[in-house]
Amino acid sequence: MSLLVVGSVAFDALETPFGKTDKIIGGAATYISLCSSYFTKPINLVAVVGGDFPKSDIALLQQHGVNTEGLQIKEDEKSFFWSGRYFNDMNSRETLVTELNVLGSFDPVIPDSYQNCEYLMLGNLAPQVQKLVIERLKNRPKLIVMDTMNFWMDIALPELLETIAMVDVLSINDEEARQLSGEYSLVKAAKKIMAMGPKFLIIKKGEHGALLFHGEKVFFAPALPLEDVFDPTGAGDTFAGGFIGYLASTGDISFENMKRAIIHGSAMASFCVEKFGTERMLNLEQTEIDARVQQFVELVNFSVEAAV
Amino acid sequence: MSLLVVGSVAFDALETPFGKTDKIIGGAATYISLCSSYFTKPINLVAVVGGDFPKSDIALLQQHGVNTEGLQIKEDEKSFFWSGRYFNDMNSRETLVTELNVLGSFDPVIPDSYQNCEYLMLGNLAPQVQKLVIERLKNRPKLIVMDTMNFWMDIALPELLETIAMVDVLSINDEEARQLSGEYSLVKAAKKIMAMGPKFLIIKKGEHGALLFHGEKVFFAPALPLEDVFDPTGAGDTFAGGFIGYLASTGDISFENMKRAIIHGSAMASFCVEKFGTERMLNLEQTEIDARVQQFVELVNFSVEAAV
Repeated sequence: MSLLVVGSVAFDALETPFGKTDKIIGGAATYISLCSSYFTKPINLVAVVGGDFPKSDIALLQQHGVNTEGLQIKEDEKSFFWSGRYFNDMNSRETLVTELNVLGSFDPVIPDSYQNCEYLMLGNLAPQVQKLVIERLKNRPKLIVMDTMNFWMDIALPELLETIAMVDVLSINDEEARQLSGEYSLVKAAKKIMAMGPKFLIIKKGEHGALLFHGEKVFFAPALPLEDVFDPTGAGDTFAGGFIGYLASTGDISFENMKRAIIHGSAMASFCVEKFGTERMLNLEQTEIDARVQQFVELVNFSVEAAV
Repeated sequence: MSLLVVGSVAFDALETPFGKTDKIIGGAATYISLCSSYFTKPINLVAVVGGDFPKSDIALLQQHGVNTEGLQIKEDEKSFFWSGRYFNDMNSRETLVTELNVLGSFDPVIPDSYQNCEYLMLGNLAPQVQKLVIERLKNRPKLIVMDTMNFWMDIALPELLETIAMVDVLSINDEEARQLSGEYSLVKAAKKIMAMGPKFLIIKKGEHGALLFHGEKVFFAPALPLEDVFDPTGAGDTFAGGFIGYLASTGDISFENMKRAIIHGSAMASFCVEKFGTERMLNLEQTEIDARVQQFVELVNFSVEAAV
């Protein structure tokens, strides 16, 4: 089933307790695309980079089944750049540099060949840009999933609310859910946020897992307890890529299947953090993915009936 | 199967964003006993109170199947008293008053009728006292579960390590696991702590659930997402009471059955926080408990096979 991914394709420079990198390929759409490519192909990418973005990195995306027809290259401008440092607990970080560059004036163009996509993944971007993408599709996709962050709640709340009202699934973290709803209880927060439009809400809790809400239903997926988290960059986007990729590959958007999609997203995110940047996402084997999903089954599997 | 519970029976005065209480019945052994009484009877209690402790509260315990033969009453002394205030997020609290009183010189006496108990639950107490209880049992119980807290890591680490080495299951929270092991990763922390003696380690993460480690195995149980947490006091002890009560009632200490015990403990803890103090634990119906356990099944239940 055809999947359209919109978001940043960018440079990151990362520093964790385990080391640091120079500028490496990053961005929400990069992680989403690489991850979802393990489930469905092609990934139709809409993004923008500057003339400084290496052709070899574009080729890398193409090698993973990413259609880059919708990747604008602004030869005279620079790519979006983010630099950050993670603290010892890996749960908190500080931003060292943010250079919007090409992203500041991003006007998303949807190639004709991308029209009629059935699945749309709106990676974290200005909500005005996310909305433009929806409006520029001639037919509404079967499922629109949107990721966003607190930054847009702070500076563009009206536009954010307009865009949220147009999507089926919203994906945010726990603090963002609390900020957006004004409720501390995630159950109450979820109700308020679903009343804003999305029928499904994913609340990501990092190392504490993720919750999927739909009406009165709720599903909880744990994160895999790991010996080492090497670099958390991109984990949330990888999670989203696994979620939408699994849904697109199965063509089933029921709540039951979304549970499986969440587990697959969680499994993929657990790979992502094992190495710096996108490195671990470049050469995964299907057998590794299957084994990791099975670890999730074993992690939460229990039967109440057996001993009663 | 016979269950021996040791711990504090005390007065608490609580303040949460939803209200405050005068002195009410509290203490680790109170919550553990009340909760485990829904699974097995009698609960053989070893604890100490002062002459100020109401006979009506002792009668209340007895009505719930608690054998108070091992409850010492120091007529001329006062009961242990703790007062605390919870902040808005309910995850942090400050201690307002701690009066050790009778607990400062607690010398646990095991009645003959308690000897040969098969299950021993050591609620949070000075580790020297927990150790004395083990030593004063003529036969080692089939299973010893120990709860403790960071306070003892700070002021009595050598004694704590001696006691930990004598138990089968240790139950602590995530921050305590990190403090005790010196490892941030809970997977690494668990390995180090199990090397200290306990074959099983439960790491409680409050609203983020609980992990059970055993050798290379790990099981994760979520906490139930709740609309309101009214008063978190006693949730950890209630969890422990459900865990040991379920194990004692089934007589099965396999890892598979401990998973079920963790789920039952989590379900009972989710009741505890719905009202102030022990209130919610006094009149639970079996049908409510069964329904709550079923909510946990639905919360984490998924099948990876169905759609693949």
